[in-house]
Amino acid sequence: MNEFEIIEKLLRPLSGEGSFALTDDVAVVAGLAITKDLLVEGVHFLAIDPKDSVARKALRVNVSDIVAKGCRPVGYFLGLVWPMTTTDADIQAFAAGLATDQSAYGLKLLGGDTTRQATPTGPFTISVTMLGEPIGAAPILRRGARPGDVLMVSGEIGGAGLGLADLQADPHADGARVTAYRLPAPPFALAEIIAAHATASIDISDGLVADAEHLARASGHEIVVEGVRVPLALAEAPPAGSRRLHALITAGDDYQALFTVPADKVEAVRAAAAALQIAVTAIGRVRTGSPAVKVLDRSGAPISFAEGTGYRHF
Amino acid sequence: MNEFEIIEKLLRPLSGEGSFALTDDVAVVAGLAITKDLLVEGVHFLAIDPKDSVARKALRVNVSDIVAKGCRPVGYFLGLVWPMTTTDADIQAFAAGLATDQSAYGLKLLGGDTTRQATPTGPFTISVTMLGEPIGAAPILRRGARPGDVLMVSGEIGGAGLGLADLQADPHADGARVTAYRLPAPPFALAEIIAAHATASIDISDGLVADAEHLARASGHEIVVEGVRVPLALAEAPPAGSRRLHALITAGDDYQALFTVPADKVEAVRAAAAALQIAVTAIGRVRTGSPAVKVLDRSGAPISFAEGTGYRHF
Repeated sequence: MNEFEIIEKLLRPLSGEGSFALTDDVAVVAGLAITKDLLVEGVHFLAIDPKDSVARKALRVNVSDIVAKGCRPVGYFLGLVWPMTTTDADIQAFAAGLATDQSAYGLKLLGGDTTRQATPTGPFTISVTMLGEPIGAAPILRRGARPGDVLMVSGEIGGAGLGLADLQADPHADGARVTAYRLPAPPFALAEIIAAHATASIDISDGLVADAEHLARASGHEIVVEGVRVPLALAEAPPAGSRRLHALITAGDDYQALFTVPADKVEAVRAAAAALQIAVTAIGRVRTGSPAVKVLDRSGAPISFAEGTGYRHF
Repeated sequence: MNEFEIIEKLLRPLSGEGSFALTDDVAVVAGLAITKDLLVEGVHFLAIDPKDSVARKALRVNVSDIVAKGCRPVGYFLGLVWPMTTTDADIQAFAAGLATDQSAYGLKLLGGDTTRQATPTGPFTISVTMLGEPIGAAPILRRGARPGDVLMVSGEIGGAGLGLADLQADPHADGARVTAYRLPAPPFALAEIIAAHATASIDISDGLVADAEHLARASGHEIVVEGVRVPLALAEAPPAGSRRLHALITAGDDYQALFTVPADKVEAVRAAAAALQIAVTAIGRVRTGSPAVKVLDRSGAPISFAEGTGYRHF
């Protein structure tokens, strides 16, 4: 069974009120949006990543979930399993990273648990449960996209995937792509605009195509993405039908917001985002059709995703 | 740095409103008591433990925290990191264990995250964040014990420690002690009585003495435990000054409630617990003095805990 089969067949029957049958990134309990994301060394970050950036990434991937739902993060619970080789300097660097991003995002630590691996190869593992307050009446979920809505995305796509490739080729690699991988920058202030205008929203963790599919399935409509419009983290646009485009929109780890807005709200969203100096780009539309995603290349032909649309953790 | 130094020096300065400065087992946010406990193979359970009992233990150690605070558990978030060797049968057994205890404790799954280890030796890791509703006006914390209060404990102490030793000696061991280790039985219905009468409360995870110390420190008073009154998971009481008593009250993993009640409420607690068929025993008292624990042996002399009072995960 893969990750999605486990959730669908075994875990969904266990889900309760406020969980949206496990079809969203957050549950809503007592008016709070709550998300939980685990990070494991070797899966979600590299053993060579500095401990302070690992701490910040652990917070940011959860901030990303909260922000994409049109909510403001307020606090988090932290579970840590340290490797046996951990030094006091590692722990201090990790705590310093938490402190930096707590200030940046207005977060507070609420509780948690800390322990150490019992075997020499047990990986550093971080579990964050983050709470957010809806800015509007309720969180913006995956399921509200309607035919006619425009699909928009914040920031640039594919930089983190390129950064990971850079680090895998050379552990001393550095630069904007490596930073995109190690320190994703979720569009914090965009939460307000999402709360005001979006009909559906998700953050991009698995990859643009995979997460657009989540919106399409939860909303029950087709989503068409014009590949040429996707703001890629490259100096030049890739050629038509490029494998490069394919790689970047399935790489994942972008932690940008992918959201749908009614067509008559696109200009308002653009103006509000420009005022906040957040890049947003219209990249496609929602239409009546089977709940799936079509990505069109420069010539208007659909790109094949036979090898999968995004990163699978299982 | 050990677990407690990390919390005190590095994490406490990061804590916010509702966290009680990380001095309790739960935080209180939006009226809910929230706890988070990680379980790591080789640290909190054994690789040979059946997967359904591992699932149930993961829920029960969190139920234990919620119940000891005089709250009713309502739902949980689940983070899973499966070992590379995991089979579909393992996953199905784990989900069946969750289903069994969800019914037993009135719990629902609210959300979470599932992934797989990237290395062959990465251990099975389970993170649970559980939410509870206070039965009274607010959760019962560690910090309310007052001089004159009586210290009470539910169930029996030391069985889980003996069960772990049994399994370490023989992986095929079975019986009541092994069950106490694999399937702790937190005193679910006692939450009502704790909510009605307790001044302070904690569940025993690190060991009776270590957790009594947590009550003493948070409340700012001395706690005296009469060793001979502690209900041990043994057919016969140990002899005076016995190393056996010492071992059992520092073994941990009991997941019983340890709580203080005003002296004039002890009979009411006994009667209410008897009506619910829950064993409770008065084992000591709170008195003015330095915030620490004294355990007296049969002769009234204090037992030394020079080698530590409980299990440390770090």
